[in-house]
Amino acid sequence: MTQTDLIARRERLLGPAYRLFYDEPAHFVRGEGVWLYDAAGEAYLDVYNNVASLGHCHPRVVAVITQQVNTLNTHTRYLHETILDCAETLLATLPDHIDRVMFTCSGSEANDLAVRIAEAYTGRTGIIVTELAYHGVTHAVSQMSPSLGEGVVRGPHIFTVPSPLSFAPEDRAAGFAQAMDEVIARMTRAGFPPALFICDTLFSSDGVISDPAGFLKPAVERVQAAGGLFVADEVQAGFGRTGEAMWGFQRHGLNPDLVSMGKPMGNGHPVAGVAMRAELIEQFGKKSRYFNTFGGNPVSSAAALAVLNVIADEGLITNAREVGAYLKDGLHMLSDHSDHVGEVRGTGLFFGVDIVTDGKPDGDRARQIVNYLRQHKVLISATGPHGNVLKIRPPLVFRPEHVDRLLAVLSAAVSNS
Amino acid sequence: MTQTDLIARRERLLGPAYRLFYDEPAHFVRGEGVWLYDAAGEAYLDVYNNVASLGHCHPRVVAVITQQVNTLNTHTRYLHETILDCAETLLATLPDHIDRVMFTCSGSEANDLAVRIAEAYTGRTGIIVTELAYHGVTHAVSQMSPSLGEGVVRGPHIFTVPSPLSFAPEDRAAGFAQAMDEVIARMTRAGFPPALFICDTLFSSDGVISDPAGFLKPAVERVQAAGGLFVADEVQAGFGRTGEAMWGFQRHGLNPDLVSMGKPMGNGHPVAGVAMRAELIEQFGKKSRYFNTFGGNPVSSAAALAVLNVIADEGLITNAREVGAYLKDGLHMLSDHSDHVGEVRGTGLFFGVDIVTDGKPDGDRARQIVNYLRQHKVLISATGPHGNVLKIRPPLVFRPEHVDRLLAVLSAAVSNS
Repeated sequence: MTQTDLIARRERLLGPAYRLFYDEPAHFVRGEGVWLYDAAGEAYLDVYNNVASLGHCHPRVVAVITQQVNTLNTHTRYLHETILDCAETLLATLPDHIDRVMFTCSGSEANDLAVRIAEAYTGRTGIIVTELAYHGVTHAVSQMSPSLGEGVVRGPHIFTVPSPLSFAPEDRAAGFAQAMDEVIARMTRAGFPPALFICDTLFSSDGVISDPAGFLKPAVERVQAAGGLFVADEVQAGFGRTGEAMWGFQRHGLNPDLVSMGKPMGNGHPVAGVAMRAELIEQFGKKSRYFNTFGGNPVSSAAALAVLNVIADEGLITNAREVGAYLKDGLHMLSDHSDHVGEVRGTGLFFGVDIVTDGKPDGDRARQIVNYLRQHKVLISATGPHGNVLKIRPPLVFRPEHVDRLLAVLSAAVSNS
Repeated sequence: MTQTDLIARRERLLGPAYRLFYDEPAHFVRGEGVWLYDAAGEAYLDVYNNVASLGHCHPRVVAVITQQVNTLNTHTRYLHETILDCAETLLATLPDHIDRVMFTCSGSEANDLAVRIAEAYTGRTGIIVTELAYHGVTHAVSQMSPSLGEGVVRGPHIFTVPSPLSFAPEDRAAGFAQAMDEVIARMTRAGFPPALFICDTLFSSDGVISDPAGFLKPAVERVQAAGGLFVADEVQAGFGRTGEAMWGFQRHGLNPDLVSMGKPMGNGHPVAGVAMRAELIEQFGKKSRYFNTFGGNPVSSAAALAVLNVIADEGLITNAREVGAYLKDGLHMLSDHSDHVGEVRGTGLFFGVDIVTDGKPDGDRARQIVNYLRQHKVLISATGPHGNVLKIRPPLVFRPEHVDRLLAVLSAAVSNS
């Protein structure tokens, strides 16, 4: 079946809400490590996928899934040890005060559950998100995801703060905190004092904003002082992505009340969760049961446990830091040599690179570059308010030779754009 | 680790929202067909689990998961054939007018998405559910699940109709339709004309209500005439469970606008979805993208496709009908011989059996019976407004000899209760 046929078939069976990457969509049939292979056997360097964060088809994850799916896959209303082993290993990576975890199937479900718990605990409904936040696709969290666009009607309880990118790095901590003060005052006047502030601790959809480390602290403390909870959305930044710590909030010295996680948690297997202070789940759990049919089942738990073990055993946080530093140097060099490459933001193995023309965001050029890379078998994407921020986010097993290949093709793409 | 230790560890790591079945919780380590095995190697007859609907660890599902997880597991923004093969096979089981499907990870996400689509299409927010409905755990659908109890605060847009069980079988169609007329009038006066009516087409949480086949039709037509959509929640009744057709709504001769599905869809693998008329997704999909990170990925799609093929190849709908009829006879006989066994409702391999004392619902006795069965290594549960309805819902590969064993133990349990 030709590519055109596949695209037509998708449109006919799945409809228009399903979008494809690239002007010429990609069709992969196999993955291994940092490589995706098309039907002709051509290898593409994966510099985008943070779900298969240990590399595609990581043998240890594949092995435990294979073993467990052959043995038992049932739900959490029977006792099973693997969910407990997984919970214990996971909670050991989190600060002591975060001592309970609940499992879901997706980051959307995890954030959605965080909202339910925060509402029950605070007795409030007000929610603060950044102006281009993305937190998922359920009815509740799609409203907390302004990056989905005007198609999603937002309830009156959702308030936005400006992106931290609105403030110069040296003013970011103070400016963002002041903006937070203002929104807390505004929502409180409107009758919606904050139940929670949630942010992706790397602000992916806002254009990737990592520095200066610690800039988030004053703003988060404002929310907590006002009686709201802070939900660290670690779906993007978690599991070692930043190269500095297991969790993105740790770079900022934060004390989150809840920590949501997803994407890389099962290296592709549908598993996600939310961890929290015990106090938060006490009342909710006594009044309501929460049963997620597939959440934390033996296969999901085994996959998540294997991911945690592989991150530790393969030293992937260190690898992300070291290979990330090498990549960052290369991106800065590219920026120094091209008028079209602006600011480079990010840490570990997650970077946003501004593409500009005459110093202004240039989303069209970014799109050209992304498509050029795809034609030359390197996979990245673009994000940010103007779609002009290259999103560079490879599996954590990325090596220096992969960086070299990326930079060579990226450099050519910039020259050709 | 002892059972007591495991329970304490659960409480310490997962918190109180996680509930266990049975006074003495069960701990299983292996599953095969209709059997679950504990750590001592004791076999339990599974007469409860509708997720592993093809039987635990069905070799064909295990084989495709093993094969695909070794090959490629990525997302739907690249082209892949398996999601299309799965969609095509699935849509072929649905009426012609249901011609698009979107994949999610859980039934909760499927129902949640159905709400988003119905709101976008109708421009309304009013929702009708039955008084003890259960549709899932997201913020939006937990409000549509009164069976979760008073802990869940319901928005003013949610309206309930009485359970069809409030009406005698001969009056059920007319009575339920009149109740629907009344709620439509009430919600329209309140400024919330119906966007949708959603029901589990077997009314599991309302106490299992199957007959007379067709009784739902007049009520659903009222909703559709009033401009609301009908969402058939097939998470429980779908995939051949009723023994009469692939989908529960088919027994009632209904034309749903959306069909949501989950639990048995991947025989335990986290996959779910919502199918609908193309028109419904057109506008939603043009205004909003919907990207579910794990939804419809190659592994999930392969598992779901295998399930559809196994249902057809092993004749499981016919098996559910035939073995279900044998089981129903046995349950009726039990009812004839015991004052504590009241009405038997259900079809295929899903039955609700009222446990009564002096003709009144007796939840305590039902709990005793459920626990007696667990002690004698047969797994069932209880449901319904008074917790007095035995929920009998084995994998679809149940055989007459399994029925015999269930009936023998159940008969003893009733005598001993």
